[in-house]
Amino acid sequence: MKKKFAVGIDVGGTTAKFGVVDRGGRILEQDRIPTNEHEVVEEFIDDMYEKLMPMIDRVGGVENVAGIGMGAPNGNIYSGTIEYAPNLKWKGIIPIADLMEKKFGLTTRLTNDANAAAMGEMMYGCAKNMKHFITITLGTGVGSGIVIDGKIVVGHDGFAGELGHTIIRAGGRLHKSTGLLGSLEAYASATGVRETAIEMLTEHPEAESILRNYRINELTSEAVYDSAMQGDTIANRIFEFTGQILGESLANFIMFSSPEAIVLFGGLTKAGTLLLHPTRKHMEANLLPIFQNKVKLLFSELKEADAAILGASALIWKLKT
Amino acid sequence: MKKKFAVGIDVGGTTAKFGVVDRGGRILEQDRIPTNEHEVVEEFIDDMYEKLMPMIDRVGGVENVAGIGMGAPNGNIYSGTIEYAPNLKWKGIIPIADLMEKKFGLTTRLTNDANAAAMGEMMYGCAKNMKHFITITLGTGVGSGIVIDGKIVVGHDGFAGELGHTIIRAGGRLHKSTGLLGSLEAYASATGVRETAIEMLTEHPEAESILRNYRINELTSEAVYDSAMQGDTIANRIFEFTGQILGESLANFIMFSSPEAIVLFGGLTKAGTLLLHPTRKHMEANLLPIFQNKVKLLFSELKEADAAILGASALIWKLKT
Repeated sequence: MKKKFAVGIDVGGTTAKFGVVDRGGRILEQDRIPTNEHEVVEEFIDDMYEKLMPMIDRVGGVENVAGIGMGAPNGNIYSGTIEYAPNLKWKGIIPIADLMEKKFGLTTRLTNDANAAAMGEMMYGCAKNMKHFITITLGTGVGSGIVIDGKIVVGHDGFAGELGHTIIRAGGRLHKSTGLLGSLEAYASATGVRETAIEMLTEHPEAESILRNYRINELTSEAVYDSAMQGDTIANRIFEFTGQILGESLANFIMFSSPEAIVLFGGLTKAGTLLLHPTRKHMEANLLPIFQNKVKLLFSELKEADAAILGASALIWKLKT
Repeated sequence: MKKKFAVGIDVGGTTAKFGVVDRGGRILEQDRIPTNEHEVVEEFIDDMYEKLMPMIDRVGGVENVAGIGMGAPNGNIYSGTIEYAPNLKWKGIIPIADLMEKKFGLTTRLTNDANAAAMGEMMYGCAKNMKHFITITLGTGVGSGIVIDGKIVVGHDGFAGELGHTIIRAGGRLHKSTGLLGSLEAYASATGVRETAIEMLTEHPEAESILRNYRINELTSEAVYDSAMQGDTIANRIFEFTGQILGESLANFIMFSSPEAIVLFGGLTKAGTLLLHPTRKHMEANLLPIFQNKVKLLFSELKEADAAILGASALIWKLKT
């Protein structure tokens, strides 16, 4: 008999979200634990076990669960390992799929977190009938999932789709965790928006701005958003600049794989048109005419966590169970 | 009975090369005509007919030929049209496959010129056993063909793989035929090398260089190569800079599709290690550790024209004939 449920887990830089999912794509129950408080992965898994196992028991125990699907930064679908993830505390090569299997007694499949979100978007979201699209997650970092001909692009070694680390300002801003200069993530992430804010406020000491009322620790992308909504000029310029960088990058991605749509996820998308308008403008301006006014630029309709949990669980439905 | 021959045609910005090919990938006979001397495509086809039809007759006439495969800039595999090719004289949408079919009475398939070269490389060249690779043609312009899971990436509309037009220096050098600023082709093409030479000689009037002996019209990428081989400092810096731009771009492409190899074609590759060393250095320096020291950077072993002719003819072998 086919097992009715699967577990989907989304491991992010700050939190891991997990849920029990049925074959129709309904998340029955979900919870989260922090990811940046465990020095070793085994402690993280122990913590997860305490919260996840009772959920599994409530759907009838492991015998009703087909397996665990996980999305994680630098998660490799071929090896089931997280390898050198710049935004996680656990360094080196972490055999997380094996460790989870031993702990839970359930088949565990791993993929890149952004690929899991793309899969969720393809199965349950606004890319449901698309064969060519790219998802970009604008959160603490910038993740991406690329779908070509209805398949997630994983490349020859399972690591494809690291668009957040592509260079868009050669020799530009230092991205601290990777050491790269001028990568997309250095600008178009929550962290990047904060850095742009600090730069603009420092470089234009004469310009008035509500943002000067914030202490430096409070100068988050949310603060920039709130200020922009109140008509603050600097805050608006911060989103204009972020959208410019993002739009230029998207143009490059479009000229690579010519997708039907780009689906944006993540915290920064709360900025709505403040981000979307400059992004679209600079995207179109940097495209060859054959690509212009063709590519849909969408915000995901799924909650980010839901997309990743659903997408991760889909790794299990794709197994024969 | 299976037809024994196919025609392969490679339409470039300057010349169109064509040949009759057998199923084993042997080019029996080939010739070329200019592409930049015909104001309308019909005249170009008439000229081609005069040289190509006698070749077809020498293998027994059209009844022995399965069809014509063509590669051309902005050639679309779905529609058989060349659409708004910036490097060709024929503007707008050119239904070249239909026009060729009517003229020759042979089934004609069209694809992007760089995709044809990638297909040739996959069937007969150094990417023979690879499922994930990218070809980059460094000629008058910069073309690209992307192979993922053994298939050419064409995207949702047939136009994917325009990596020469991706932006690598935002706000940088004007690329005249597209109006884009700072695209790869503005730097890493024969035209780009010439422009870099003019810039460097102008910006450093005090620096001695053999290149100053050339008249401005003669200041070609070949002149730069010859001077570099004689130890000229400026000429060497031109290749160092070209390799830097190319290497940074290749790093971006690798983080998109994680290929096993990048295969370089075209006139600029004659510069050999002068170009290869800085390219590799800057490619590796801009990659996340998970991608470093993994991707082969190869020069094509096929002659550029041969790869494109063979690849174009492969469009026909893939039809059921």
